Amino acid sequence: MRAIVIDNGVSLRRDYPEPEPKPGESIVRVRLAGICGTDLELAKGYMNFRGVPGHEFVGEVVEATNSSMRRRRVVGEINAGCGACRNCAEGLARHCPNRTVLGILGRDGAFAEYLRLPDRNLIALPDSISDEMAVFVEPLAAAYEIFEQIRIPHNHRVLVLGDGRLGILVTMAMRAEGYDVDVAGHHPERAQPLGIDVQREQELNDRYDVVVDCTGSSGGFSRALEIVRPRGTVILKSTAAASADLNLAPVVINEITVLGSRCGAFAPAIDALASGKIDPRPLISATLSLDDGPHALDEAAKSSNFKILLKVS
Amino acid sequence: MRAIVIDNGVSLRRDYPEPEPKPGESIVRVRLAGICGTDLELAKGYMNFRGVPGHEFVGEVVEATNSSMRRRRVVGEINAGCGACRNCAEGLARHCPNRTVLGILGRDGAFAEYLRLPDRNLIALPDSISDEMAVFVEPLAAAYEIFEQIRIPHNHRVLVLGDGRLGILVTMAMRAEGYDVDVAGHHPERAQPLGIDVQREQELNDRYDVVVDCTGSSGGFSRALEIVRPRGTVILKSTAAASADLNLAPVVINEITVLGSRCGAFAPAIDALASGKIDPRPLISATLSLDDGPHALDEAAKSSNFKILLKVS
Repeated sequence: MRAIVIDNGVSLRRDYPEPEPKPGESIVRVRLAGICGTDLELAKGYMNFRGVPGHEFVGEVVEATNSSMRRRRVVGEINAGCGACRNCAEGLARHCPNRTVLGILGRDGAFAEYLRLPDRNLIALPDSISDEMAVFVEPLAAAYEIFEQIRIPHNHRVLVLGDGRLGILVTMAMRAEGYDVDVAGHHPERAQPLGIDVQREQELNDRYDVVVDCTGSSGGFSRALEIVRPRGTVILKSTAAASADLNLAPVVINEITVLGSRCGAFAPAIDALASGKIDPRPLISATLSLDDGPHALDEAAKSSNFKILLKVS
Repeated sequence: MRAIVIDNGVSLRRDYPEPEPKPGESIVRVRLAGICGTDLELAKGYMNFRGVPGHEFVGEVVEATNSSMRRRRVVGEINAGCGACRNCAEGLARHCPNRTVLGILGRDGAFAEYLRLPDRNLIALPDSISDEMAVFVEPLAAAYEIFEQIRIPHNHRVLVLGDGRLGILVTMAMRAEGYDVDVAGHHPERAQPLGIDVQREQELNDRYDVVVDCTGSSGGFSRALEIVRPRGTVILKSTAAASADLNLAPVVINEITVLGSRCGAFAPAIDALASGKIDPRPLISATLSLDDGPHALDEAAKSSNFKILLKVS
């Protein structure tokens, strides 16, 4: 099959082996996939990943243990737990120590004609959610994960730090849930067509109760610590470039809560899309063919672009 | 007056100027003071502190605006807020951006015959609390601060990482409040006379719901991240040596909550001592004279000692 493969660089392969069905797992024909910052990091060597990247997708089930799932249009939770450990038993397969992660850890991903996922990871979509919307379920679920982790009072002042893909989705999710959030970044012109006013990060002088760090840079965390009020909360949404010469003394002195936040359950994101509370389609900068995959990754890295999609089938 | 002074080294001075009374502030004759890890850090250059260190004390009010406080035996909250800002208005003088801090920031401390603090910082002691116990009110309040910040379910597994002064006080406070905590460190023999079993830190293999990092080292934080379960909580109790090459990726991947925790209100600590729930006196390794101050700081730095007290008057 055709697939984008990371293996000492990124290339399109036409002879990549199709995934073999395994007990309890389904084969999905990918229709549309989204390129995420994590994919760009993987291409640069993050996690020493080798194989097919891609974890934001919508597709059609072509082989399934459970026959009712065949031909269904689906999205898929990306963490595949072992199903046997304590975390899996508690419904936290996303934290299973033996998990594989679609297109990130030990499992080929969505930048290919077919992918394989456990049946229990697949969620059938209502017709009201188009492919172009469905491909945002996974990153939007990561945004909604914040509400699974903490309750933020609605009178709290919230700043989203970072105006990239994730920052804008977090902003959309927080606004959809009734929060009056500010956004800060370096590209106000890019977000303007979305109706989102972005403040220039260096001009911030307020103190916020909650700062959501979506910068994807270690400098973002240090800046968040400057901007949050004493006893406030910094939510860390990105792992990339998190290793650095960091000073945690302000965390203690100002008694800050730092909350790491990663993938989320898909249901709240699907609900938000189905109800029309969130329409992420204005974030789509371009839709390219899978055959243009390596070029598409370059496009996704450009600061002038938001989301680049790959049309697979 | 006699005072221990940090100024390019630590020395005893016999001619240090006595503090002048200011409106709204009282003069306290120090009776007994405790040496804390922060004092040792200040002596090594932390915060570029110049002046008299010391912030754990019990003393007697000798001059006061409020005459009812005269001759009272007191302890004192160490953060002196401006009284005018939003944090002070909200009862968070400990986070006032314009605060001075006794013996730490812009205000001479307790390793001297006399000190000066705002009247509102002073708390009169009941007779049931001896001087030897009272000198632990400040560090014990820092331990109790944890309960002001988060509610930890009593069935959660809690580990105190670090078996120094602060680690043992946090252990005592958590046990007094009904938690079945484990303690890990490098000096099991030192804590044994206190009836506290310390596990060797390198032999830990459990995962804990909550890890309280009292190590005072940046390595402690990294170790805490290894020991805490996914979605668990790491409470950071020490600022010293917190700047380092840290990798925050595990915080995000495992969705850890990192909670900075510093000084606390004195009332819960005073209650715990007055009720007999906690008796910290077995922590006293030696009581030296103020005249022996520089030597006493050396003693406090020895791993064989817990708390060194300075008898001032």
